[in-house]
Amino acid sequence: MTRLVLLRHGQSLWNLENRFTGWVDVDLTEQGEDQARRAGALMAEAGFAPDRAYASYLKRAIKTLWLSLDALDRAWIPVTKSWRLNERHYGALTGLNKAETIDKHGEDQVRVWRRSFDTPPPLLDANDDRHPRFDPRYADLDPNTMPAGESLKLTLDRVRPYFEAEIAPALEDGGEIIIAAHGNSLRAIVMMLFNVSADEIMKVEIPTGNPLLIDLENTQPRQARYLDTARATELPAIG
Amino acid sequence: MTRLVLLRHGQSLWNLENRFTGWVDVDLTEQGEDQARRAGALMAEAGFAPDRAYASYLKRAIKTLWLSLDALDRAWIPVTKSWRLNERHYGALTGLNKAETIDKHGEDQVRVWRRSFDTPPPLLDANDDRHPRFDPRYADLDPNTMPAGESLKLTLDRVRPYFEAEIAPALEDGGEIIIAAHGNSLRAIVMMLFNVSADEIMKVEIPTGNPLLIDLENTQPRQARYLDTARATELPAIG
Repeated sequence: MTRLVLLRHGQSLWNLENRFTGWVDVDLTEQGEDQARRAGALMAEAGFAPDRAYASYLKRAIKTLWLSLDALDRAWIPVTKSWRLNERHYGALTGLNKAETIDKHGEDQVRVWRRSFDTPPPLLDANDDRHPRFDPRYADLDPNTMPAGESLKLTLDRVRPYFEAEIAPALEDGGEIIIAAHGNSLRAIVMMLFNVSADEIMKVEIPTGNPLLIDLENTQPRQARYLDTARATELPAIG
Repeated sequence: MTRLVLLRHGQSLWNLENRFTGWVDVDLTEQGEDQARRAGALMAEAGFAPDRAYASYLKRAIKTLWLSLDALDRAWIPVTKSWRLNERHYGALTGLNKAETIDKHGEDQVRVWRRSFDTPPPLLDANDDRHPRFDPRYADLDPNTMPAGESLKLTLDRVRPYFEAEIAPALEDGGEIIIAAHGNSLRAIVMMLFNVSADEIMKVEIPTGNPLLIDLENTQPRQARYLDTARATELPAIG
Protein backbone atom coordinates (compact mmCIF):
# COMPACT_ATOMS: atom_id res chain seq x y z
CA MET A 1 0.00 0.00 0.00
CA THR A 2 1.18 3.48 -0.89
CA ARG A 3 0.05 6.49 1.11
CA LEU A 4 0.28 10.09 0.07
CA VAL A 5 -0.41 13.23 2.07
CA LEU A 6 -1.14 16.49 0.29
CA LEU A 7 -0.54 19.34 2.72
CA ARG A 8 -1.42 22.93 1.91
CA HIS A 9 0.74 25.40 3.87
CA GLY A 10 -0.63 26.93 7.05
CA GLN A 11 -2.00 30.47 7.23
CA SER A 12 0.38 33.05 5.75
CA LEU A 13 0.70 36.77 6.42
CA TRP A 14 -0.98 37.59 3.12
CA ASN A 15 -3.84 35.14 3.67
CA LEU A 16 -4.57 37.46 6.59
CA GLU A 17 -4.17 40.63 4.54
CA ASN A 18 -6.34 39.21 1.73
CA ARG A 19 -3.73 39.89 -0.96
CA PHE A 20 -2.94 37.96 -4.16
CA THR A 21 0.22 36.11 -3.11
CA GLY A 22 1.29 33.74 -5.88
CA TRP A 23 5.09 33.53 -5.94
CA VAL A 24 5.76 36.19 -3.29
CA ASP A 25 7.68 34.44 -0.52
CA VAL A 26 5.56 35.49 2.45
CA ASP A 27 6.03 33.80 5.80
CA LEU A 28 3.64 31.80 7.95
CA THR A 29 1.76 33.54 10.75
CA GLU A 30 2.07 32.09 14.26
CA GLN A 31 -1.29 30.45 13.65
CA GLY A 32 0.12 29.00 10.42
CA GLU A 33 3.04 27.54 12.37
CA ASP A 34 0.64 26.02 14.90
CA GLN A 35 -1.39 24.51 12.04
CA ALA A 36 1.79 22.93 10.67
CA ARG A 37 2.70 21.36 14.02
CA ARG A 38 -0.87 20.16 14.45
CA ALA A 39 -0.78 18.67 10.94
CA GLY A 40 2.29 16.69 12.04
CA ALA A 41 0.51 15.49 15.20
CA LEU A 42 -2.53 14.41 13.13
CA MET A 43 -0.33 12.44 10.73
CA ALA A 44 1.39 10.77 13.69
CA GLU A 45 -2.03 9.79 15.12
CA ALA A 46 -2.98 8.33 11.73
CA GLY A 47 0.20 6.22 11.81
CA PHE A 48 1.55 8.08 8.77
CA ALA A 49 5.38 7.95 8.72
CA PRO A 50 6.63 9.64 5.53
CA ASP A 51 9.86 8.36 4.05
CA ARG A 52 10.11 10.99 1.31
CA ALA A 53 8.90 14.60 1.00
CA TYR A 54 8.40 17.22 -1.69
CA ALA A 55 7.92 20.96 -1.31
CA SER A 56 7.78 24.10 -3.43
CA TYR A 57 10.46 26.81 -3.37
CA LEU A 58 8.29 29.00 -1.14
CA LYS A 59 8.93 29.24 2.59
CA ARG A 60 5.28 28.99 3.65
CA ALA A 61 5.24 25.44 2.19
CA ILE A 62 8.81 24.53 3.21
CA LYS A 63 8.32 25.67 6.81
CA THR A 64 4.94 23.92 7.01
CA LEU A 65 6.78 20.77 5.94
CA TRP A 66 9.65 21.31 8.41
CA LEU A 67 7.35 21.92 11.37
CA SER A 68 5.15 18.94 10.55
CA LEU A 69 8.16 16.63 9.98
CA ASP A 70 9.61 17.75 13.29
CA ALA A 71 6.30 16.96 15.02
CA LEU A 72 6.45 13.54 13.31
CA ASP A 73 10.07 13.08 14.44
CA ARG A 74 11.04 12.55 10.76
CA ALA A 75 13.24 15.61 10.13
CA TRP A 76 15.84 13.22 8.65
CA ILE A 77 13.86 12.04 5.59
CA PRO A 78 14.94 13.30 2.15
CA VAL A 79 13.16 16.46 1.01
CA THR A 80 13.14 17.55 -2.64
CA LYS A 81 12.08 21.09 -3.53
CA SER A 82 10.94 22.33 -6.91
CA TRP A 83 9.60 25.61 -8.31
CA ARG A 84 7.09 23.45 -10.20
CA LEU A 85 5.18 22.94 -6.93
CA ASN A 86 4.93 26.71 -6.36
CA GLU A 87 1.59 28.45 -6.07
CA ARG A 88 -0.07 29.67 -9.26
CA HIS A 89 1.76 32.83 -10.41
CA TYR A 90 -0.67 35.73 -10.07
CA GLY A 91 1.05 37.93 -12.66
CA ALA A 92 0.38 41.66 -12.39
CA LEU A 93 -2.17 41.00 -9.63
CA THR A 94 0.67 39.85 -7.33
CA GLY A 95 0.64 41.80 -4.09
CA LEU A 96 -2.68 43.57 -4.74
CA ASN A 97 -5.41 43.56 -2.13
CA LYS A 98 -8.36 41.51 -3.36
CA ALA A 99 -11.01 44.03 -2.31
CA GLU A 100 -9.15 46.92 -3.97
CA THR A 101 -8.75 44.86 -7.14
CA ILE A 102 -12.52 44.34 -7.20
CA ASP A 103 -13.06 48.11 -6.79
CA LYS A 104 -10.71 48.77 -9.69
CA HIS A 105 -11.57 46.00 -12.17
CA GLY A 106 -15.07 44.99 -11.11
CA GLU A 107 -16.29 41.86 -9.41
CA ASP A 108 -16.95 39.95 -12.63
CA GLN A 109 -13.44 40.41 -13.98
CA VAL A 110 -11.84 39.44 -10.67
CA ARG A 111 -14.07 36.37 -10.42
CA VAL A 112 -12.85 35.29 -13.86
CA TRP A 113 -9.21 35.78 -12.86
CA ARG A 114 -9.74 33.85 -9.65
CA ARG A 115 -12.16 31.17 -10.72
CA SER A 116 -11.74 30.52 -14.42
CA PHE A 117 -9.69 27.44 -15.26
CA ASP A 118 -7.84 28.84 -18.23
CA THR A 119 -7.91 32.66 -18.12
CA PRO A 120 -4.51 33.92 -16.96
CA PRO A 121 -4.28 37.15 -14.97
CA PRO A 122 -2.63 40.18 -16.65
CA LEU A 123 1.03 39.19 -17.09
CA LEU A 124 3.93 40.84 -15.31
CA ASP A 125 6.16 43.03 -17.43
CA ALA A 126 9.65 41.49 -17.80
CA ASN A 127 11.09 44.61 -16.12
CA ASP A 128 8.72 44.50 -13.17
CA ASP A 129 10.72 43.80 -10.03
CA ARG A 130 8.16 41.15 -9.09
CA HIS A 131 9.26 39.13 -12.16
CA PRO A 132 10.85 35.77 -11.20
CA ARG A 133 13.92 36.52 -13.31
CA PHE A 134 15.11 38.88 -10.55
CA ASP A 135 14.95 36.14 -7.91
CA PRO A 136 18.15 34.06 -7.50
CA ARG A 137 16.19 30.90 -6.76
CA TYR A 138 14.92 30.85 -10.37
CA ALA A 139 18.28 31.73 -11.94
CA ASP A 140 18.66 28.26 -13.48
CA LEU A 141 15.24 28.35 -15.18
CA ASP A 142 14.90 28.74 -18.91
CA PRO A 143 13.37 32.24 -19.41
CA ASN A 144 10.79 30.60 -21.70
CA THR A 145 9.47 28.33 -18.93
CA MET A 146 9.53 31.08 -16.29
CA PRO A 147 5.94 32.20 -15.70
CA ALA A 148 4.88 35.85 -15.53
CA GLY A 149 1.25 35.02 -14.74
CA GLU A 150 -0.67 31.73 -14.79
CA SER A 151 -4.18 30.35 -15.03
CA LEU A 152 -4.83 27.11 -13.18
CA LYS A 153 -4.41 25.42 -16.57
CA LEU A 154 -0.91 26.86 -16.96
CA THR A 155 -0.15 25.84 -13.36
CA LEU A 156 -1.24 22.30 -14.18
CA ASP A 157 0.92 22.37 -17.33
CA ARG A 158 4.08 22.98 -15.30
CA VAL A 159 3.18 20.77 -12.33
CA ARG A 160 2.42 17.80 -14.62
CA PRO A 161 5.97 17.07 -15.95
CA TYR A 162 7.38 17.18 -12.41
CA PHE A 163 4.61 15.00 -11.04
CA GLU A 164 5.08 12.48 -13.85
CA ALA A 165 8.88 12.40 -13.75
CA GLU A 166 9.50 12.60 -9.99
CA ILE A 167 6.46 11.93 -7.86
CA ALA A 168 4.55 9.25 -9.83
CA PRO A 169 7.62 6.92 -9.93
CA ALA A 170 8.03 7.38 -6.15
CA LEU A 171 4.35 6.45 -5.69
CA GLU A 172 4.91 3.38 -7.86
CA ASP A 173 7.84 2.42 -5.62
CA GLY A 174 5.44 2.51 -2.66
CA GLY A 175 5.94 3.89 0.81
CA GLU A 176 4.63 7.03 2.43
CA ILE A 177 5.06 10.35 0.68
CA ILE A 178 4.17 13.90 1.64
CA ILE A 179 3.85 16.92 -0.66
CA ALA A 180 3.77 20.35 1.00
CA ALA A 181 2.56 22.95 -1.45
CA HIS A 182 -0.20 25.43 -2.29
CA GLY A 183 -3.90 25.72 -3.04
CA ASN A 184 -3.47 25.65 -6.81
CA SER A 185 -0.44 23.39 -7.26
CA LEU A 186 -2.27 20.86 -5.06
CA ARG A 187 -5.44 21.33 -7.13
CA ALA A 188 -3.33 20.40 -10.16
CA ILE A 189 -2.19 17.20 -8.42
CA VAL A 190 -5.75 16.38 -7.32
CA MET A 191 -6.88 16.84 -10.97
CA MET A 192 -4.31 14.32 -12.16
CA LEU A 193 -4.79 11.79 -9.37
CA PHE A 194 -8.60 11.87 -9.24
CA ASN A 195 -9.26 12.56 -12.94
CA VAL A 196 -11.17 15.71 -12.12
CA SER A 197 -12.52 17.91 -14.91
CA ALA A 198 -11.65 21.59 -15.35
CA ASP A 199 -15.15 22.59 -14.20
CA GLU A 200 -15.14 20.41 -11.13
CA ILE A 201 -11.67 21.37 -9.92
CA MET A 202 -12.64 25.00 -9.38
CA LYS A 203 -15.07 23.81 -6.69
CA VAL A 204 -12.35 21.92 -4.80
CA GLU A 205 -11.08 24.07 -1.90
CA ILE A 206 -8.13 22.51 -0.09
CA PRO A 207 -8.02 23.82 3.50
CA THR A 208 -4.73 25.19 4.90
CA GLY A 209 -2.65 22.95 7.15
CA ASN A 210 -5.09 20.02 6.93
CA PRO A 211 -3.38 16.81 5.74
CA LEU A 212 -5.29 15.09 2.93
CA LEU A 213 -4.36 11.41 3.37
CA ILE A 214 -4.80 9.32 0.22
CA ASP A 215 -4.45 5.54 0.03
CA LEU A 216 -3.27 4.45 -3.41
CA GLU A 217 -2.58 1.39 -5.48
CA ASN A 218 0.26 2.56 -7.66
CA THR A 219 -0.96 6.02 -8.63
CA GLN A 220 -4.69 5.21 -8.32
CA PRO A 221 -6.46 6.64 -5.25
CA ARG A 222 -8.57 4.11 -3.37
CA GLN A 223 -9.61 6.24 -0.42
CA ALA A 224 -9.01 9.82 0.73
CA ARG A 225 -9.80 11.82 3.86
CA TYR A 226 -8.77 15.00 5.61
CA LEU A 227 -7.19 14.28 9.00
CA ASP A 228 -8.68 17.40 10.61
CA THR A 229 -12.28 16.31 10.11
CA ALA A 230 -13.69 19.50 11.64
CA ARG A 231 -12.13 21.51 8.81
CA ALA A 232 -12.67 19.02 5.99
CA THR A 233 -14.03 20.21 2.63
CA GLU A 234 -15.70 18.20 -0.10
CA LEU A 235 -13.47 15.86 -2.09
CA PRO A 236 -13.90 14.75 -5.70
CA ALA A 237 -15.37 11.28 -6.20
CA ILE A 238 -12.93 8.37 -6.43
CA GLY A 239 -12.79 5.75 -9.17
CA MET B 1 36.07 31.72 -5.17
CA THR B 2 34.39 28.95 -3.23
CA ARG B 3 33.17 29.51 0.30
CA LEU B 4 32.30 26.84 2.83
CA VAL B 5 30.69 27.19 6.24
CA LEU B 6 31.09 24.44 8.82
CA LEU B 7 28.37 24.82 11.42
CA ARG B 8 28.25 22.73 14.58
CA HIS B 9 24.71 22.38 15.94
CA GLY B 10 23.55 24.69 18.73
CA GLN B 11 23.32 23.59 22.35
CA SER B 12 21.39 20.33 22.79
CA LEU B 13 19.51 18.98 25.79
CA TRP B 14 22.29 16.48 26.53
CA ASN B 15 25.06 19.09 26.20
CA LEU B 16 23.29 20.57 29.22
CA GLU B 17 22.98 17.25 31.02
CA ASN B 18 26.64 16.41 30.31
CA ARG B 19 25.81 13.02 28.78
CA PHE B 20 27.54 11.11 25.97
CA THR B 21 25.17 11.75 23.07
CA GLY B 22 26.61 10.31 19.87
CA TRP B 23 23.77 9.07 17.67
CA VAL B 24 20.94 9.70 20.14
CA ASP B 25 18.58 12.12 18.42
CA VAL B 26 18.29 14.74 21.17
CA ASP B 27 16.72 18.09 20.40
CA LEU B 28 18.12 21.60 20.62
CA THR B 29 17.49 23.66 23.74
CA GLU B 30 15.90 27.10 23.32
CA GLN B 31 19.38 28.55 23.61
CA GLY B 32 20.49 26.16 20.86
CA GLU B 33 17.68 27.43 18.63
CA ASP B 34 18.72 31.02 19.33
CA GLN B 35 22.32 30.14 18.46
CA ALA B 36 21.13 28.71 15.14
CA ARG B 37 19.16 31.86 14.25
CA ARG B 38 22.11 34.00 15.29
CA ALA B 39 24.43 31.87 13.12
CA GLY B 40 22.13 32.68 10.18
CA ALA B 41 22.25 36.39 10.97
CA LEU B 42 26.07 36.28 11.19
CA MET B 43 26.30 34.55 7.80
CA ALA B 44 23.97 37.15 6.30
CA GLU B 45 26.19 39.94 7.71
CA ALA B 46 29.23 38.24 6.15
CA GLY B 47 27.44 38.21 2.78
CA PHE B 48 27.36 34.43 2.78
CA ALA B 49 24.48 33.13 0.63
CA PRO B 50 24.63 29.33 0.50
CA ASP B 51 23.34 27.62 -2.63
CA ARG B 52 23.71 24.05 -1.33
CA ALA B 53 23.57 22.49 2.13
CA TYR B 54 24.50 19.23 3.83
CA ALA B 55 23.39 17.90 7.19
CA SER B 56 23.55 14.73 9.26
CA TYR B 57 20.52 12.56 10.05
CA LEU B 58 20.28 14.04 13.55
CA LYS B 59 17.71 16.72 14.36
CA ARG B 60 20.07 18.92 16.37
CA ALA B 61 22.10 19.48 13.15
CA ILE B 62 19.09 19.53 10.78
CA LYS B 63 17.18 22.05 12.89
CA THR B 64 20.28 24.20 13.32
CA LEU B 65 20.49 24.24 9.52
CA TRP B 66 16.77 24.99 9.09
CA LEU B 67 16.77 27.87 11.54
CA SER B 68 19.93 29.41 10.09
CA LEU B 69 18.69 29.02 6.48
CA ASP B 70 15.42 30.66 7.47
CA ALA B 71 17.34 33.57 9.04
CA LEU B 72 19.30 33.79 5.75
CA ASP B 73 16.05 33.68 3.74
CA ARG B 74 17.43 30.63 1.87
CA ALA B 75 15.03 27.89 3.00
CA TRP B 76 14.60 26.95 -0.69
CA ILE B 77 18.17 25.73 -1.37
CA PRO B 78 18.75 21.98 -1.82
CA VAL B 79 19.65 20.15 1.39
CA THR B 80 21.23 16.68 1.35
CA LYS B 81 21.30 14.62 4.52
CA SER B 82 23.58 11.71 5.28
CA TRP B 83 24.22 9.44 8.27
CA ARG B 84 27.92 9.82 7.36
CA LEU B 85 27.83 13.33 8.82
CA ASN B 86 26.43 12.06 12.14
CA GLU B 87 28.28 12.61 15.39
CA ARG B 88 30.85 10.01 16.44
CA HIS B 89 28.98 6.95 17.72
CA TYR B 90 29.70 6.64 21.43
CA GLY B 91 28.98 2.89 21.64
CA ALA B 92 28.09 1.55 25.08
CA LEU B 93 28.82 4.96 26.61
CA THR B 94 25.80 6.41 24.77
CA GLY B 95 23.43 8.11 27.20
CA LEU B 96 25.75 7.83 30.22
CA ASN B 97 26.49 10.86 32.34
CA LYS B 98 30.13 11.86 31.93
CA ALA B 99 30.78 12.40 35.67
CA GLU B 100 29.22 9.03 36.57
CA THR B 101 31.30 7.33 33.88
CA ILE B 102 34.44 8.80 35.45
CA ASP B 103 33.36 7.50 38.88
CA LYS B 104 32.85 4.04 37.42
CA HIS B 105 35.78 3.67 34.98
CA GLY B 106 38.28 6.21 36.30
CA GLU B 107 39.40 9.51 34.87
CA ASP B 108 42.28 8.06 32.85
CA GLN B 109 40.10 5.56 31.01
CA VAL B 110 37.42 8.15 30.22
CA ARG B 111 40.08 10.59 28.99
CA VAL B 112 41.33 7.90 26.57
CA TRP B 113 37.79 7.26 25.30
CA ARG B 114 37.15 10.97 24.86
CA ARG B 115 40.52 12.22 23.70
CA SER B 116 42.37 9.39 21.99
CA PHE B 117 42.25 9.51 18.20
CA ASP B 118 41.92 5.81 17.57
CA THR B 119 40.63 4.09 20.72
CA PRO B 120 36.93 3.26 20.24
CA PRO B 121 34.58 3.24 23.25
CA PRO B 122 33.17 -0.14 24.38
CA LEU B 123 30.90 -1.28 21.53
CA LEU B 124 27.13 -1.62 21.78
CA ASP B 125 25.81 -5.14 21.83
CA ALA B 126 23.81 -5.90 18.65
CA ASN B 127 20.74 -6.54 20.82
CA ASP B 128 21.06 -3.29 22.77
CA ASP B 129 18.06 -1.10 21.94
CA ARG B 130 20.46 1.82 21.39
CA HIS B 131 21.94 -0.07 18.39
CA PRO B 132 21.33 1.76 15.08
CA ARG B 133 19.82 -1.35 13.53
CA PHE B 134 16.63 -0.66 15.49
CA ASP B 135 16.29 2.86 14.04
CA PRO B 136 14.30 3.10 10.76
CA ARG B 137 16.51 5.88 9.43
CA TYR B 138 19.42 3.43 9.15
CA ALA B 139 17.34 0.59 7.68
CA ASP B 140 19.06 0.88 4.28
CA LEU B 141 22.58 0.63 5.74
CA ASP B 142 24.69 -2.46 5.29
CA PRO B 143 24.93 -4.02 8.80
CA ASN B 144 28.70 -4.20 8.25
CA THR B 145 29.03 -0.42 7.82
CA MET B 146 26.66 0.38 10.68
CA PRO B 147 28.75 1.52 13.63
CA ALA B 148 28.23 0.26 17.19
CA GLY B 149 30.90 2.56 18.64
CA GLU B 150 33.55 4.75 17.00
CA SER B 151 36.88 6.41 17.70
CA LEU B 152 37.50 9.70 15.89
CA LYS B 153 39.54 7.64 13.43
CA LEU B 154 36.54 5.43 12.64
CA THR B 155 34.39 8.55 12.33
CA LEU B 156 36.88 9.98 9.84
CA ASP B 157 36.87 6.67 7.93
CA ARG B 158 33.11 6.93 7.28
CA VAL B 159 32.99 10.70 6.73
CA ARG B 160 35.80 10.55 4.15
CA PRO B 161 34.02 8.61 1.35
CA TYR B 162 31.01 10.94 1.58
CA PHE B 163 33.17 14.03 1.64
CA GLU B 164 35.16 12.84 -1.37
CA ALA B 165 32.19 11.64 -3.41
CA GLU B 166 29.64 14.37 -2.62
CA ILE B 167 31.10 17.47 -1.00
CA ALA B 168 34.54 17.81 -2.65
CA PRO B 169 33.00 17.81 -6.19
CA ALA B 170 30.53 20.49 -5.07
CA LEU B 171 33.45 22.57 -3.74
CA GLU B 172 35.22 22.10 -7.08
CA ASP B 173 32.09 23.38 -8.84
CA GLY B 174 32.36 26.54 -6.74
CA GLY B 175 29.65 28.49 -4.99
CA GLU B 176 28.73 28.74 -1.33
CA ILE B 177 28.19 25.59 0.66
CA ILE B 178 27.15 24.94 4.25
CA ILE B 179 27.58 21.76 6.27
CA ALA B 180 25.60 21.48 9.51
CA ALA B 181 26.96 18.66 11.62
CA HIS B 182 28.69 17.73 14.88
CA GLY B 183 31.86 18.25 16.89
CA ASN B 184 33.56 15.09 15.63
CA SER B 185 32.22 14.78 12.08
CA LEU B 186 33.32 18.40 11.57
CA ARG B 187 36.72 17.58 13.09
CA ALA B 188 37.02 14.86 10.44
CA ILE B 189 36.29 17.42 7.71
CA VAL B 190 38.76 19.90 9.22
CA MET B 191 41.42 17.14 9.26
CA MET B 192 40.91 16.50 5.55
CA LEU B 193 40.66 20.14 4.47
CA PHE B 194 43.51 21.51 6.59
CA ASN B 195 45.75 18.43 6.54
CA VAL B 196 45.73 18.20 10.31
CA SER B 197 47.51 15.35 12.09
CA ALA B 198 45.82 12.93 14.48
CA ASP B 199 47.58 14.58 17.45
CA GLU B 200 46.69 18.11 16.47
CA ILE B 201 43.01 17.43 15.71
CA MET B 202 42.27 16.46 19.30
CA LYS B 203 43.13 20.03 20.32
CA VAL B 204 40.65 21.53 17.84
CA GLU B 205 37.40 22.41 19.65
CA ILE B 206 34.67 23.61 17.29
CA PRO B 207 32.23 25.84 19.21
CA THR B 208 28.47 25.19 18.95
CA GLY B 209 26.42 27.40 16.60
CA ASN B 210 29.43 29.46 15.47
CA PRO B 211 29.83 29.45 11.65
CA LEU B 212 33.39 28.66 10.56
CA LEU B 213 33.70 30.47 7.21
CA ILE B 214 36.42 29.07 4.95
CA ASP B 215 37.55 30.62 1.65
CA LEU B 216 38.83 27.97 -0.72
CA GLU B 217 40.44 27.53 -4.09
CA ASN B 218 39.00 24.22 -5.24
CA THR B 219 39.27 22.20 -2.03
CA GLN B 220 42.27 24.12 -0.61
CA PRO B 221 41.53 26.50 2.27
CA ARG B 222 43.06 29.97 1.82
CA GLN B 223 41.55 31.67 4.86
CA ALA B 224 39.26 30.69 7.73
CA ARG B 225 37.51 32.50 10.55
CA TYR B 226 34.71 32.07 13.04
CA LEU B 227 31.91 34.58 12.49
CA ASP B 228 31.15 34.90 16.21
CA THR B 229 34.59 36.25 17.11
CA ALA B 230 33.78 36.42 20.84
CA ARG B 231 33.38 32.64 20.89
CA ALA B 232 36.17 31.75 18.45
CA THR B 233 38.59 28.93 19.26
CA GLU B 234 42.03 28.25 17.83
CA LEU B 235 42.15 27.02 14.23
CA PRO B 236 44.77 24.78 12.63
CA ALA B 237 47.37 26.53 10.48
CA ILE B 238 46.61 26.94 6.79
CA GLY B 239 48.86 25.98 3.87
